[in-house]
Amino acid sequence: MAFNRPDPAESPLRTTRTELKRKRERGSHDRSVVEEILDEGLVAHVGVVADGGPIVTPMAYARIDGDLFLHGAAGNRTLRALAEGSALCLTVTLLDGLVLARSAIHHSMNYRCVVLYGRGHRVEDEAEKRRALAAVVDHVVPGRSAVARPPTSSELRATLVVRVPIVEASAKVRGGGPVDDDADLELPVWAGVIPVEVVADAPVGDSVLEAETTAPVSRLRG
Amino acid sequence: MAFNRPDPAESPLRTTRTELKRKRERGSHDRSVVEEILDEGLVAHVGVVADGGPIVTPMAYARIDGDLFLHGAAGNRTLRALAEGSALCLTVTLLDGLVLARSAIHHSMNYRCVVLYGRGHRVEDEAEKRRALAAVVDHVVPGRSAVARPPTSSELRATLVVRVPIVEASAKVRGGGPVDDDADLELPVWAGVIPVEVVADAPVGDSVLEAETTAPVSRLRG
Repeated sequence: MAFNRPDPAESPLRTTRTELKRKRERGSHDRSVVEEILDEGLVAHVGVVADGGPIVTPMAYARIDGDLFLHGAAGNRTLRALAEGSALCLTVTLLDGLVLARSAIHHSMNYRCVVLYGRGHRVEDEAEKRRALAAVVDHVVPGRSAVARPPTSSELRATLVVRVPIVEASAKVRGGGPVDDDADLELPVWAGVIPVEVVADAPVGDSVLEAETTAPVSRLRG
Repeated sequence: MAFNRPDPAESPLRTTRTELKRKRERGSHDRSVVEEILDEGLVAHVGVVADGGPIVTPMAYARIDGDLFLHGAAGNRTLRALAEGSALCLTVTLLDGLVLARSAIHHSMNYRCVVLYGRGHRVEDEAEKRRALAAVVDHVVPGRSAVARPPTSSELRATLVVRVPIVEASAKVRGGGPVDDDADLELPVWAGVIPVEVVADAPVGDSVLEAETTAPVSRLRG
């Protein structure tokens, strides 16, 4: 089972396509910045081209070293296109805050975002499939794959798993407060940031739950 | 200023492309369901095709009647492509919960998602541009556009505004608890949903803030 982790020295993530054209000071091709954003996110928006037009689909995912893994039912069209090696663009966006300036035009959002270009590879090996699916479950609730019933061979056959090597990607980060024009600073308008966060509420057990089992804890702040 | 609201009777949002191929019971082409999801979301992931490959970019947006509005700096490549009428796919995803089943394979997420296909139109009219930008600001903090300094004519000229008519779209919604196989129901594994929500934390005023101004309230739960 080879996960082909790219050598960071050989794969600096930066290409003409991931070179930031605008607001370069917000950009990074640092692998650790990219990985941190991917690890914090829960949903990727995956774009492929079908019949000449774009399709953008939200998907769960997980990272193992230098690869991202996607999965779904074997009949899923987008996933089949990915498994066949269609060019993809995968974007993960974390919203951190609403930025309120004194002027309408300088309103903004604080965010951390990764845009990854590449092509997927269908995972055929059963052990690698198992490892990828466990990573997707553990990405949401750490340790969960050790508790839940593992996939059967027939469940694995019905599931398409796609590996996407992280070799061409950029991160973009906007942080801090509003940037108002000097002439606006004395306007009697509140300016600042409303921080935004994804939180977990109290777990809701299903109706046939055995009383002695305990709710697990997600990665999110409760 | 014409916003060309499509007649729902003539534009039922459903086309061969937005016909759901999988999990049809989760889908809807009801305009009110689509609009409610678009109005709750803060970030759209917008896909276009460039040089034969997909590009997926996170963008703020707002809806006015039957149109979505996007905006950005006049130099932004994706936005320029949208303004020129490139085919687009715009996806808004709201994550509602982490669904933990007794088996790894039945883990899932509760979400509400809109996938919209179409083409954008560059907004040239200054009054329509002003109305669109006000809607984007008010989408985040209701009433904010009446408080902030409005855009100047030169700020408007430097801003590209794109109108996307909502005529071809579908919503997909997953709710409720895990769906475990009957044979797994007696496993001593917690199963249920961890609800997830985007919340606003306490506002942080910027350092040169006039003391008498009061922080506004976003649409998010505080």
